[in-house]
Amino acid sequence: MRLRALPLHSSILIMHDQLFVQMALSAWNTYIRRTNDFFEGFTDEELYSEIAPGKNRLIYLLGHLVAVHDRMFELFEIGERQFKHLDEPFLQQPDKSVTDLPSASTLRDNWKHVNNRLTEKMKMMEPNNWFSRHSAISPEEFEKEPERNKLNVLINRTNHLAYHFGQLMLVRKA
Amino acid sequence: MRLRALPLHSSILIMHDQLFVQMALSAWNTYIRRTNDFFEGFTDEELYSEIAPGKNRLIYLLGHLVAVHDRMFELFEIGERQFKHLDEPFLQQPDKSVTDLPSASTLRDNWKHVNNRLTEKMKMMEPNNWFSRHSAISPEEFEKEPERNKLNVLINRTNHLAYHFGQLMLVRKA
Repeated sequence: MRLRALPLHSSILIMHDQLFVQMALSAWNTYIRRTNDFFEGFTDEELYSEIAPGKNRLIYLLGHLVAVHDRMFELFEIGERQFKHLDEPFLQQPDKSVTDLPSASTLRDNWKHVNNRLTEKMKMMEPNNWFSRHSAISPEEFEKEPERNKLNVLINRTNHLAYHFGQLMLVRKA
Repeated sequence: MRLRALPLHSSILIMHDQLFVQMALSAWNTYIRRTNDFFEGFTDEELYSEIAPGKNRLIYLLGHLVAVHDRMFELFEIGERQFKHLDEPFLQQPDKSVTDLPSASTLRDNWKHVNNRLTEKMKMMEPNNWFSRHSAISPEEFEKEPERNKLNVLINRTNHLAYHFGQLMLVRKA
């Protein structure tokens, strides 16, 4: 099943593709908005509290989400990532093991920046591009598994965001 | 944009549609499997512990997920729902407010049953059907918002499952 070989001039195909991209982007935007609203309800100091006793702090999940979203630029081949230095403290190390984290205020800025930039770039991606392989899969693998495309990464990253948003909501304010 | 008017005999269209459905079902199955594995790692008694102090108990999230998934049969028009009696204790009431909950063992059976039955029924749904309106939206609304189709419900329910799975993972065993 070679998607590249499809007649992409077909308006029907593009219409359906656009609808599916719209659905996936809409789910992504919903959770980005909810997570934004969540973090905005907390002071910088409050971000250092844990989601539950002995569990990750809000600040760790914030940095973790910035790092994960930052990697999407390279997966989608829509630009260089900008926050590579966050991988070590927020992806490779568990919370509370790194002492010199960026400030809450810096991470908030990074969070807004990475999502705004992603939104801008994703808006410009053609439906055809969404169905192409992402940079972490080889052409050979993709030939066999065409569902491992960029849109699939977006769907999975939305689930990842929902997963952590569910954890954040445990410290929701009354 | 009237999806019903599309030439559904087109093999190209169906091929792409199948790919969408496959991607959405694959994400769903991944979180169902993870959640199954999670619950199987706990004894019935352990299901009565809270995910964090003062928060929902595992048993409540189990019943909540059964009720939410049970409602999908009617949304997709693929059968009658079977666990309507779970709406009151697990959707309408918060945890710990209803004293006579079904047993952990019954809820485990319900959980397996609802997901196995859903999987069976969803496997038989044609791609075309996934892009049709779900039962909770009127034809008039759907005309204006064709993205509010059954596949979109599946994407949203997967995010809902991931949201609660993230919470469950806070009590993961070492």
